[in-house]
Amino acid sequence: MIVVMKQSATKAQIANVTARIERLGCQVHISEGEERTIIGIIGNGRPLEREPIERMAGVEHTVPILRPFKLASREFHPRDTIVSVNGVKVGGKQVVVMAGPCAVESHDQLLETARAVKEAGAQVLRGGAFKPRTSPYSFQGLGEEGLRLLAEAREETGLPVVTEVMDSQMVPLVITYADILQIGARNMQNYALLHAVGEAQRPVLLKRGMMSTIEELLMAAEYILSHGNDRIILCERGIRTFEQYTRNTLDISAVPLLKQLSHLPVVVDPSHSTGKWALVEPVSRAAVAAGADGLIVEVHPHPEKALSDGAQSLKPARFAALMRGLRPVAEAVGRTL
Amino acid sequence: MIVVMKQSATKAQIANVTARIERLGCQVHISEGEERTIIGIIGNGRPLEREPIERMAGVEHTVPILRPFKLASREFHPRDTIVSVNGVKVGGKQVVVMAGPCAVESHDQLLETARAVKEAGAQVLRGGAFKPRTSPYSFQGLGEEGLRLLAEAREETGLPVVTEVMDSQMVPLVITYADILQIGARNMQNYALLHAVGEAQRPVLLKRGMMSTIEELLMAAEYILSHGNDRIILCERGIRTFEQYTRNTLDISAVPLLKQLSHLPVVVDPSHSTGKWALVEPVSRAAVAAGADGLIVEVHPHPEKALSDGAQSLKPARFAALMRGLRPVAEAVGRTL
Amino acid sequence: MIVVMKQSATKAQIANVTARIERLGCQVHISEGEERTIIGIIGNGRPLEREPIERMAGVEHTVPILRPFKLASREFHPRDTIVSVNGVKVGGKQVVVMAGPCAVESHDQLLETARAVKEAGAQVLRGGAFKPRTSPYSFQGLGEEGLRLLAEAREETGLPVVTEVMDSQMVPLVITYADILQIGARNMQNYALLHAVGEAQRPVLLKRGMMSTIEELLMAAEYILSHGNDRIILCERGIRTFEQYTRNTLDISAVPLLKQLSHLPVVVDPSHSTGKWALVEPVSRAAVAAGADGLIVEVHPHPEKALSDGAQSLKPARFAALMRGLRPVAEAVGRTL
Amino acid sequence: MIVVMKQSATKAQIANVTARIERLGCQVHISEGEERTIIGIIGNGRPLEREPIERMAGVEHTVPILRPFKLASREFHPRDTIVSVNGVKVGGKQVVVMAGPCAVESHDQLLETARAVKEAGAQVLRGGAFKPRTSPYSFQGLGEEGLRLLAEAREETGLPVVTEVMDSQMVPLVITYADILQIGARNMQNYALLHAVGEAQRPVLLKRGMMSTIEELLMAAEYILSHGNDRIILCERGIRTFEQYTRNTLDISAVPLLKQLSHLPVVVDPSHSTGKWALVEPVSRAAVAAGADGLIVEVHPHPEKALSDGAQSLKPARFAALMRGLRPVAEAVGRTL
Repeated sequence: MIVVMKQSATKAQIANVTARIERLGCQVHISEGEERTIIGIIGNGRPLEREPIERMAGVEHTVPILRPFKLASREFHPRDTIVSVNGVKVGGKQVVVMAGPCAVESHDQLLETARAVKEAGAQVLRGGAFKPRTSPYSFQGLGEEGLRLLAEAREETGLPVVTEVMDSQMVPLVITYADILQIGARNMQNYALLHAVGEAQRPVLLKRGMMSTIEELLMAAEYILSHGNDRIILCERGIRTFEQYTRNTLDISAVPLLKQLSHLPVVVDPSHSTGKWALVEPVSRAAVAAGADGLIVEVHPHPEKALSDGAQSLKPARFAALMRGLRPVAEAVGRTL
Repeated sequence: MIVVMKQSATKAQIANVTARIERLGCQVHISEGEERTIIGIIGNGRPLEREPIERMAGVEHTVPILRPFKLASREFHPRDTIVSVNGVKVGGKQVVVMAGPCAVESHDQLLETARAVKEAGAQVLRGGAFKPRTSPYSFQGLGEEGLRLLAEAREETGLPVVTEVMDSQMVPLVITYADILQIGARNMQNYALLHAVGEAQRPVLLKRGMMSTIEELLMAAEYILSHGNDRIILCERGIRTFEQYTRNTLDISAVPLLKQLSHLPVVVDPSHSTGKWALVEPVSRAAVAAGADGLIVEVHPHPEKALSDGAQSLKPARFAALMRGLRPVAEAVGRTL
Repeated sequence: MIVVMKQSATKAQIANVTARIERLGCQVHISEGEERTIIGIIGNGRPLEREPIERMAGVEHTVPILRPFKLASREFHPRDTIVSVNGVKVGGKQVVVMAGPCAVESHDQLLETARAVKEAGAQVLRGGAFKPRTSPYSFQGLGEEGLRLLAEAREETGLPVVTEVMDSQMVPLVITYADILQIGARNMQNYALLHAVGEAQRPVLLKRGMMSTIEELLMAAEYILSHGNDRIILCERGIRTFEQYTRNTLDISAVPLLKQLSHLPVVVDPSHSTGKWALVEPVSRAAVAAGADGLIVEVHPHPEKALSDGAQSLKPARFAALMRGLRPVAEAVGRTL
Repeated sequence: MIVVMKQSATKAQIANVTARIERLGCQVHISEGEERTIIGIIGNGRPLEREPIERMAGVEHTVPILRPFKLASREFHPRDTIVSVNGVKVGGKQVVVMAGPCAVESHDQLLETARAVKEAGAQVLRGGAFKPRTSPYSFQGLGEEGLRLLAEAREETGLPVVTEVMDSQMVPLVITYADILQIGARNMQNYALLHAVGEAQRPVLLKRGMMSTIEELLMAAEYILSHGNDRIILCERGIRTFEQYTRNTLDISAVPLLKQLSHLPVVVDPSHSTGKWALVEPVSRAAVAAGADGLIVEVHPHPEKALSDGAQSLKPARFAALMRGLRPVAEAVGRTL
């Protein structure tokens, strides 16, 4: 951290800041510039809080130098982490596609979808049993019945299952059915939930909050890692911007950037990021070309009857076409699919 | 809701959409324009999901007409709601100031602050026992011990206490100590938590998410209202934008807009919205001038030693000056303080 | 500027960076931290470009320390600048209200408005002769005829006139009629135009771009200042965010922040920032309470017939009420109006 | 357009709105819903202004139904527009790469770069002679001397040249040297400039403003089209968001969306959108996979000595590698390069 002193800072104020930093077990380096004095802090390995120092007399502002995440960083763990789920490896050479309905609605809807996505080459089945909905009057999911249907679909197709857990209290229940615990975008900074899945020792699909920076996503991963769970798959699913023609703005640069900053695998959700089925295919191709380790795609046999997010769901035939079109893109960047 | 058909839509497609809407118990009004057909839906009192219709063949897009919130709307409840907390009335003529430290750190820190803010005219004591922190390595709050200290401070000063509850599991514990349950910005769409406080029958201070729209804030209030709790205080605390000189961007227009759209009282948090103590006073004045029903301000006896958010905390003497300066502003807009 | 080297940086790379900085006439301060080396640059009074250094081998990133604006900064010019326009002083004790129609439409419309706003206490007449419109099919303004009408209105009422100039070529024309040259939000970084008004020696109302940071606004002012014109009035008019209930999001904190960072006067545009006439009054009060030196408000005698921006224009009677309500707010913060 | 009346609207108010719309030559369709009356407007082929109607008594708000652009829309012009520049076809099967330095700095720098990018397969040479810079103290470009060097480089390599024109006054000068006129992001809504290039009858590369919507980009194209120039290449170059790890956020979904909404070709600028050379390659691959018709990439022989934007420039060898890696991606999506 760097402390920038005000032009008007007195020697006593500079000495006070210096003394405080040294009491915290850090060393200081003072640069007296033309216009103001700058104090560099050489850390003791533990992160320093900026705010108490910013509030000291004579301080103009502070500037962080190091990234605040550690366990999630590639510097700490240079090799790619590969998350294995019932034999499916996320983060390796193969691009892994997770597909299924936004919400589990019925036995027939789920099974029909599960068979179709497996046939087309998907390796993981997605489906929501508990649905976070903006309106209390919208369909909230089937709950435990939905989890049971997912387990049934896994039984029949062999596909491992990813499903969302929305609350720390529900982790013990969801864990008895799910292979991957999904943390939704709205819960990315639900710290009680991050703590609970950190202790759950089950792979986690961590979605970036629609209002969250890349650094905050990695800090959320750091929470899970710091509770002992390193089987984390990061998911870029679009951020909120001023643009209204799409539901969110997919931050495609986040894919290579996360791969450079962290060792964790990165998947992309082309359905929520665009909100429009007609954009899912080109955006999926872009994600794979940018180096994503996988995709999570909404598929529904009858999108016009879907109880949620129909506008962004693909029909099975179109999903199969998507998969066929993705294979040459994956190969063009040295991957398989 | 309005359904805009594609220019290329066939008669059969239009008939399909019409039939589906009628099956949902709604009426349709068809306008055949020069360029395309538009189908107006006359509702049956229940909100319609847009997405399934957007996915039907021939549909270009849909346009919502009505606001999706009902119980929170002023149309539904024309008179101002006044939330009473141990005799303090939020939403009436008097502007209510809530003040205290970001985090409860110790008996002395809390009591010293509580006495000072009461002396200066604050009517509610704020203080965090459970702290949502971006980093797992930052101070996470004293937990139940912090709640006990808050109760002690209430005992001594008579000030009711507002404190954050971060997880649905913690509601029973927090409720035994707190007078107002605070839902933090990161939890505004934690639906399990909204459900739990909705049933708790205790006043709720609901903070707007840092990247949540005004509509989403009112929908979050709608969740709490729909579970039977109408003692809700809305809080504008700044939204996330591209501007980096302030921690967040206070959306001052949200204050009169929320008062126009809803009957619920609105308070402003000048500390988190700016992140800089030197901006707290002018922004507080602006909030009161814009019609806010109250403020929630961070005060710390020794901000430079604070374990969190020191940079935005006022010292007691400055808080007292803030209060003195606010009174004429409140009177200028027909309020008291 | 601080240069943060990569953990893997070699001694030769550090030496290279050091040598380059020294060749640029700056001094270096090297801090060897636990994890990486940090190079502080002590400047020679001229700003350094970050990018060439960021691209050197072994460099992770650079961190700017000093603000990039100088002539616009309060450190350079500690006392408030007061911009005088035909006897009206912007930036002094009195809050100056500029009012008038969005676009000049006709002699009668303009004169009726000018008389009404003068009567209510406005000190400057606003009105657009050249209108930047998103659509080529919208009304683009009366052009020079509009300028003539503005001059006529000034003749009759004595109010100085502020009007927009959209292009460097038009500066000589507009200057023959206008007392204050307005740079619109979309042109805040039109450098040819900034250059031209910098040389024009006429007061400038510089609107913040809807996509511009506070720093960029001050850098735009710096362009004008560096061409010799220091009669600049900054204008906060709302920034673009994800929120859609208002046309823009007024950044109220920008008012005190600009006053702290710069010596230039700051006015607020409550009409464009909200886009809704029903929000203009509370937001105007907030602006004055936050310390704004003035307001620029849209007034139209028949807003429902306005050729542009009718939805945000006040009728004369409502404007008079706004002015009456503002006076006690101005007095509450030690100003007059 | 749809007019939503207030719940409290009277019959007289509804009749007033209806009468006004009919006077404008449009037809109305009235739907009396349970909660409020909605008035649909059937247009007369010319766009209607929303604001005057929004300001009428009894109106709650209006909702636009049709897209405001016409000449730029695919409905108006269903087939892809191909822009030919000295034999290079932008918008056809071949992906066209434009490359060169951010700023023209010297004869040697430009020629060395031009030869290298041609050798690697680029088809157009980019280079700035007039540079829009945030700071008045940064390098502003070589001006006409830069244009002359570009013409010289074209002479030698045969590559057509794209360069920025920043002001309407400069169009006659720039046009004597440039093959494609570039409108920079900060000037996307400089209407005098759009007008001037609209009349210039020279291909235009129109960059999306960093905080402009897709609709505004197409409206800017509409300005140029409405002045008779249809040789427009749209350029997505990243938008401004809250994310700070990249310079801008590339809106990858804009590529297929623009191709669906419009007939104009779309290129992507991976250099400005990321601001980091290490992200240029993956993002370029993503752009081609998403369906971009071309790329515009910064290349500099010695990025660490560049006078602008060195941090995002590729060295020639890396650019050649980029091109090699892009070819299989282009082929995977049915294009050539």
